[in-house]
Amino acid sequence: MRITDIREATASISSNIQNAYVNFSQMTVSVIAVESDVMRHGRPVIGYGFCSNGRYAQGGILRERLIPRLTAAGEGALLSDDGGNFDPRKIRDTMLANEKPGGHGDRAVAAGALDMAVWDLVAKIEERPLWRLLSERYNGGGHDERVMVYPGGGYYYPGKGLDRLQDEMRGYRDEGYKVVKMKIGAVPLAEDLGRIEAVAGLVGGNDVAVDANGRFDLETALAYGEAMAPFGLFWFEEPGDPLDFELNAELATRYSGALATGENLFSLQDARNLIRHGGMRPDRDWIQIDPALSYGLTEYLDIIQMIEGLGWSRRCLIPHGGHQLALALAAGLQLGGSESYPGVFQPFGGFADDTVIVDGWAEPGEHMGIGMEAKSAMFAEIQRLVG
Amino acid sequence: MRITDIREATASISSNIQNAYVNFSQMTVSVIAVESDVMRHGRPVIGYGFCSNGRYAQGGILRERLIPRLTAAGEGALLSDDGGNFDPRKIRDTMLANEKPGGHGDRAVAAGALDMAVWDLVAKIEERPLWRLLSERYNGGGHDERVMVYPGGGYYYPGKGLDRLQDEMRGYRDEGYKVVKMKIGAVPLAEDLGRIEAVAGLVGGNDVAVDANGRFDLETALAYGEAMAPFGLFWFEEPGDPLDFELNAELATRYSGALATGENLFSLQDARNLIRHGGMRPDRDWIQIDPALSYGLTEYLDIIQMIEGLGWSRRCLIPHGGHQLALALAAGLQLGGSESYPGVFQPFGGFADDTVIVDGWAEPGEHMGIGMEAKSAMFAEIQRLVG
Repeated sequence: MRITDIREATASISSNIQNAYVNFSQMTVSVIAVESDVMRHGRPVIGYGFCSNGRYAQGGILRERLIPRLTAAGEGALLSDDGGNFDPRKIRDTMLANEKPGGHGDRAVAAGALDMAVWDLVAKIEERPLWRLLSERYNGGGHDERVMVYPGGGYYYPGKGLDRLQDEMRGYRDEGYKVVKMKIGAVPLAEDLGRIEAVAGLVGGNDVAVDANGRFDLETALAYGEAMAPFGLFWFEEPGDPLDFELNAELATRYSGALATGENLFSLQDARNLIRHGGMRPDRDWIQIDPALSYGLTEYLDIIQMIEGLGWSRRCLIPHGGHQLALALAAGLQLGGSESYPGVFQPFGGFADDTVIVDGWAEPGEHMGIGMEAKSAMFAEIQRLVG
Repeated sequence: MRITDIREATASISSNIQNAYVNFSQMTVSVIAVESDVMRHGRPVIGYGFCSNGRYAQGGILRERLIPRLTAAGEGALLSDDGGNFDPRKIRDTMLANEKPGGHGDRAVAAGALDMAVWDLVAKIEERPLWRLLSERYNGGGHDERVMVYPGGGYYYPGKGLDRLQDEMRGYRDEGYKVVKMKIGAVPLAEDLGRIEAVAGLVGGNDVAVDANGRFDLETALAYGEAMAPFGLFWFEEPGDPLDFELNAELATRYSGALATGENLFSLQDARNLIRHGGMRPDRDWIQIDPALSYGLTEYLDIIQMIEGLGWSRRCLIPHGGHQLALALAAGLQLGGSESYPGVFQPFGGFADDTVIVDGWAEPGEHMGIGMEAKSAMFAEIQRLVG
């Protein structure tokens, strides 16, 4: 059993949207195919992966460092001990050999895309949906039949007023979502409060999450927190710089509502620092590490073990990214939920075409592997790019 | 005044050495030329830069993200307010537009190489050595005539015994160095103690720094610390994972000798977390952030301001990397010193050909800009690659 080819390409997910920090007009992702010599139904089994949105494609690191190390690995070095399948952890260790510690950024994104393809391949070889494989291997068979999901939306874009913001949120409700999310921080507080009020008036403050995308200094975060407190929001996301743990800890002592952060932390070590130094409260706060930006599901398994070791429940984990990998993880490992991107970062955002959202819950489905073949527009693009 | 061309290429700095974490047989750096339409002596002024060693070339990020943003910048957007030179901070902000916060790794390395070329260009347009320009602009004219330097050496390589380790250290002493550094952590403690003893016996324990390259868990770091205490070492470098601030803080309460770390932290935010959470002691410890891996000199100016704001002296800063940029920074901004690489990472390691080391001190010299033209083997390679 061996990997016969690894193909990578860059796909555009550009959109005319912006958050408080960046616009997405040039945004790209890396798409990967890992082809094996295992045959099913007369064809080689191929695993597919892509990196999550927000950090650009990583073709250079993939082509120059990660993929050549896998290609150079000796016969059997990437297989499970019994030789019956590929071993994602051995593959991870091989692709990251001779990489120094620290500096978890673009490299983690590149590895995340490749690791996703490896897990898709492994689950397909087992002829199981990935979430069932994870449940059996790592969760004693426990799993969730349905996963809490919420749409990452409410972006700023040119000419978007309160009416169109409300229309967008009404649309999510019509699609079956309950909790909705909106961006804040790109306009003055008073204007953002009007936007929050417009959405809260429509769906109720408890079901509105707001996301500052790391924009605020402490003073601004506190001012927003105080002004938003009456809404009883679902959460207040990424108030300050993702690495400003002190800001987060200070805010947590003064804002009693839920906080959420972690989409811009890309490793076990960074996630551990958030828990150790960020003042996050296990009884209410949310951790949003995205496996498809953070060395992949393999590292995410270590992150789950780390947070449980520090007294947290894995139900506090709700991955960023709105992709099928996060949905599979949440179902098979019983996390708190998953983001969804029904409207943006197409064709990569969102779940399989047949996924039905009811009262804010999604079922993971029975597609083999991660199930990318069941998301037709995305899979057509993947096939066009990497076969 | 405008940038007419930005060229980048990948150079090999492979060597048959290893530290406790990685081997360097495949190590590369990015080399950059930023060409302007400013003419001096009948030729366009060109700034040169390269990324520091240890984190590989970053051609993908440079070609796909950073360089195109500079190429697309409007007339004048990259110039100082008076139009008399390029503005490194505006160039930095432009090259990093639409990059999300957090995730400071390969991107910081790519930006560090480009920022080095920009500062070389800016200083050459001013017809000044960079260290003099920095002294005048940011240090009220203050500067050091000589900089404490030490060779990054003592690597493990196949067949290297105590004799050859001592020969290496004797060679550094013959070249004029005083403090020498050696790697630890790739072999058992007892064997490393024999190595340390061999070097301390030669140069005195006070002049020996040891570097674990982030390899140890807390228990091992404490065991090494206890065993090494009698030597009175110059410092104990990167004992644990660079992001394990808790480990570092715990070690600092129990190892009374100097600690040094920071070469694998790549941003203002990560450096601030080390100061806030890492237990480092301003009266004895060393911070080794490398500007050529960490968004460049522009970010480093902010790091100096940050540490001074937190009550530290800039004399505690001693950049990793052993390159001419670090020497210029240390002289012009009066830091604690600079690493040197007389023997490894050639042709990029070390200083100008005419740099004389006396009693562990180096003079920065009067070459224009960073002075890469005065390091002939390196400059020949730079010219071959990017003209």
